[in-house]
Amino acid sequence: MEKARLEAFSDGVFAVAITLLALDLAVAGPGHGSLAHQLGDRWPSFAAYVVSFFVIGITWVNHHALFKSFATTDRSLLFLNMLLLLFIVAIPFGTSTMATYLKSGGADAHLAAVLYTAILEGMALSFGAIFGWSIRRDERRHDPLPKPEARRALLRFSSGALVYLVAIAVSLISAPAALVLVAAVAVYYVFEQTPTGDAA
Amino acid sequence: MEKARLEAFSDGVFAVAITLLALDLAVAGPGHGSLAHQLGDRWPSFAAYVVSFFVIGITWVNHHALFKSFATTDRSLLFLNMLLLLFIVAIPFGTSTMATYLKSGGADAHLAAVLYTAILEGMALSFGAIFGWSIRRDERRHDPLPKPEARRALLRFSSGALVYLVAIAVSLISAPAALVLVAAVAVYYVFEQTPTGDAA
Amino acid sequence: MEKARLEAFSDGVFAVAITLLALDLAVAGPGHGSLAHQLGDRWPSFAAYVVSFFVIGITWVNHHALFKSFATTDRSLLFLNMLLLLFIVAIPFGTSTMATYLKSGGADAHLAAVLYTAILEGMALSFGAIFGWSIRRDERRHDPLPKPEARRALLRFSSGALVYLVAIAVSLISAPAALVLVAAVAVYYVFEQTPTGDAA
Amino acid sequence: MEKARLEAFSDGVFAVAITLLALDLAVAGPGHGSLAHQLGDRWPSFAAYVVSFFVIGITWVNHHALFKSFATTDRSLLFLNMLLLLFIVAIPFGTSTMATYLKSGGADAHLAAVLYTAILEGMALSFGAIFGWSIRRDERRHDPLPKPEARRALLRFSSGALVYLVAIAVSLISAPAALVLVAAVAVYYVFEQTPTGDAA
Repeated sequence: MEKARLEAFSDGVFAVAITLLALDLAVAGPGHGSLAHQLGDRWPSFAAYVVSFFVIGITWVNHHALFKSFATTDRSLLFLNMLLLLFIVAIPFGTSTMATYLKSGGADAHLAAVLYTAILEGMALSFGAIFGWSIRRDERRHDPLPKPEARRALLRFSSGALVYLVAIAVSLISAPAALVLVAAVAVYYVFEQTPTGDAA
Repeated sequence: MEKARLEAFSDGVFAVAITLLALDLAVAGPGHGSLAHQLGDRWPSFAAYVVSFFVIGITWVNHHALFKSFATTDRSLLFLNMLLLLFIVAIPFGTSTMATYLKSGGADAHLAAVLYTAILEGMALSFGAIFGWSIRRDERRHDPLPKPEARRALLRFSSGALVYLVAIAVSLISAPAALVLVAAVAVYYVFEQTPTGDAA
Repeated sequence: MEKARLEAFSDGVFAVAITLLALDLAVAGPGHGSLAHQLGDRWPSFAAYVVSFFVIGITWVNHHALFKSFATTDRSLLFLNMLLLLFIVAIPFGTSTMATYLKSGGADAHLAAVLYTAILEGMALSFGAIFGWSIRRDERRHDPLPKPEARRALLRFSSGALVYLVAIAVSLISAPAALVLVAAVAVYYVFEQTPTGDAA
Repeated sequence: MEKARLEAFSDGVFAVAITLLALDLAVAGPGHGSLAHQLGDRWPSFAAYVVSFFVIGITWVNHHALFKSFATTDRSLLFLNMLLLLFIVAIPFGTSTMATYLKSGGADAHLAAVLYTAILEGMALSFGAIFGWSIRRDERRHDPLPKPEARRALLRFSSGALVYLVAIAVSLISAPAALVLVAAVAVYYVFEQTPTGDAA
C-alpha cells in the first residue's frame, strides 16, 4: 500500500514533467515569419522534445521495473526518490535551455548542453542510489539479487551515469553531439532491455 | 499490478495533456480591444479546444477499453505506449498552432492543419500498433479475439488512421475543413461505440 | 476496476485544473511598481483563485461521493463525465478572464463574469446529467435511491444549476456581485453537506 | 477505498504543484546576456526551487505517513485537506515571487519573503488541523495514539508552524535569511524523521 502510493506520486510527477516538455514547442504566431520557417528554425526544440520524452519515459519504465522488485519502503527511499524527482522535474527546463541555445554556438551552447547533461547525470546518480539502497539489505527486495546479477545491474547503472559524464565532456566541444549522444543512450536502453522485458 | 501502474501513468499523461489544452484559451486582457471582440476573434481556439478535448478524451476511453482486455504487459508494449503518449502530449501544441493560424489562410494555415492532423495520424498509428501487439499472441489478451472480430477491430483502427490521412490531404486545401473532419471523426466515435459500451 | 480507472483519470484532471488556477497569480516582477501595489492591485486574482479552488474542490468531493454510489459504468457515463471535465478544465480560463476584467467595469467586466458563471453552469448541468444517468436504472447504483431521496437529490442538483443561472443574470449587473454569489454557493455546499459526510 | 481516492487526488495535486515549481527556472534566451550571466543572475530561482521542492516533498511524505494512520475519512477531513492543498498549490507562486524579488532588497524583498513564508505557515496550520482532526476521536486512527505520543506529535506539528512564524518575522529583516531558515527546517525534517521511517 505504502509502496503503491509512492509509485503513484512518482508516476504523477513523471507524467506532468513529460507533458510539460511540450510547452516548449509553441510557435510565436503570425507576424514572426512564415510558419514553415518558424518550424524549421525550431528543429532543436523538436529534436530535444523527442529525446527528452524518451529519456523521461525510459527512466519511468526503469523506475517501474525497479520498484516492482522492492519488498519494502522506508524514509531513506522516499528521500532518494525525491532527489530523483528533483532532477526529473528539472529536465523540461534543461531541455528548453538546450534547445534554445543549441544553434547559437559558442560558450552559450556549450553551457546549455552542460546544464542539460548535468541534470541527466544527477538523475542517473539518484537512480543508482535508489538501486544501491535496494541491494544493501536482502529484505528490501522480493527476490534478493544473487551476487553476479547484482554486479551486472550495478554495472549497467554505473555505465548510464558514466555515459552522461561523457556527454557533459562532449558538451564542452559540441552541443549537438551531446544531444545525439543522449539520444543514442535512449535508443540503446530501448533495445537493450526489450528482451528482459519480454521474458519477464 | 504492473498493468495498473502503466495505466496510471498513461492516465496521468492523458489528464495533464487534456488540461493543458485550456492554456491556449487565455485572452490578452484590457487594452487589446473589447473582450467581446477578443473572444469572437479567438473562436478557432475555442473550436479547436472542444475538438481536441474530445479527441484526447475518446482516445483515453479507447485506451481504457483496450488495456482492459490485456492479460499481460511487456517492454514492447511499454514503448509502443510511450510512442502513443509522445503524440498525445504533442496535441496541445498542434491544437494551439492550428487555432493560431486557422484564419490567416494561405500556406501557413495549411501547414498548421497538416501539423495538427499529422500528430493525430501519429497517434492513430501508435494506437493501431498497440492493438496489433495485443493480437499477435493469444496469451496477451484475457479473451483472445476470434478471427472475424479481430479483423473488424483492425479495420476500425485502420479506418481511423485512414481518415486522419484524408484529413492531412484536406488540410492542404482548407484548414477549417480539416478541423471539421477531425470533429466529425470524434462525433462518429462517440456514437459508434456507445452501443458496445452499453452492452459491456 | 473500470470505475477505479475512470475515477483516477478524473482525479488527475481535477488535480491539474485546480493547480493551474495558481498560474494566474504570478506578479510582473520588479519595474512594474512596488510589490505591495502589484499584490493589492491584483486582489481579484486572489479572490477568484480561492473561490474557484473551492468550487473545483467541492465538485471533486461531490464527484467522489457520487461515483462511490455507482455499481457500474458504461460508455454514456464516460462521455457525460468527459463533458463535465470539459467545463472543469475551462474553469482556470474563466477564472483568469474574470479576475483580469473584474475591475475594468462596463461591458467587459460583465461579459467576463458571464463567461465565468456560464462555465460553472455547464459544469453543474453536466454533473446533473451524470446524476440523472445514475438514477435512470436501478442496477447502476449500489443502493438504488428510494424515490423521495432521489427527488431531494435531484432538487439539490437542480438548485445548484439554478443558482449559477442566477449568477449569470447577476453578472450582467455586477461582476463582483456574481463572484460573491459563486463564493456563497461554495460556502453553502461546504456546510450543507458536512452532516451527511460525517454520518457516512 | 474512499481514503485511497482522497490520497490519489492529493498525490496528483502535490505532483503537479511540485512540477510547476520548475516553470520558474526558464531563462530568457539569446539576446539577454550570456547564458552564464543569466544563470548566475538567477541563482535565487535555483535556490528557491530546491528549497520549495523539498518543502513540498517533505509535506507529501508526512501527508503520506499521516493518512496511513487514518482508519476513516469524513467530509471535515476532505475540506481540511482541501485547505492544505490550497496552500500547497500556492507555493509555486510564493516561490517564484520570493525568487524574483530576493535580490531587489528593501520593502519588496521583505514583502515577497513574508508572502512566501505566510503560505508555508498556512500550509503548516492546515496540516496541524488535519492531525488535530485525527486525534479528536479514537476511531479515526488504526492505532489510537497514546497520550504522550499524541502530545509529542502535536508539539512537533506546532513547532513546524512556530518556525514558519519565526520565518515570517525574519522576512521583515532579511529575505535571504528567511529562505535559509526555511531550508534549515526542510533539512531538519529530513533527518529528524528518518529513524521513525526506518523503524516503521
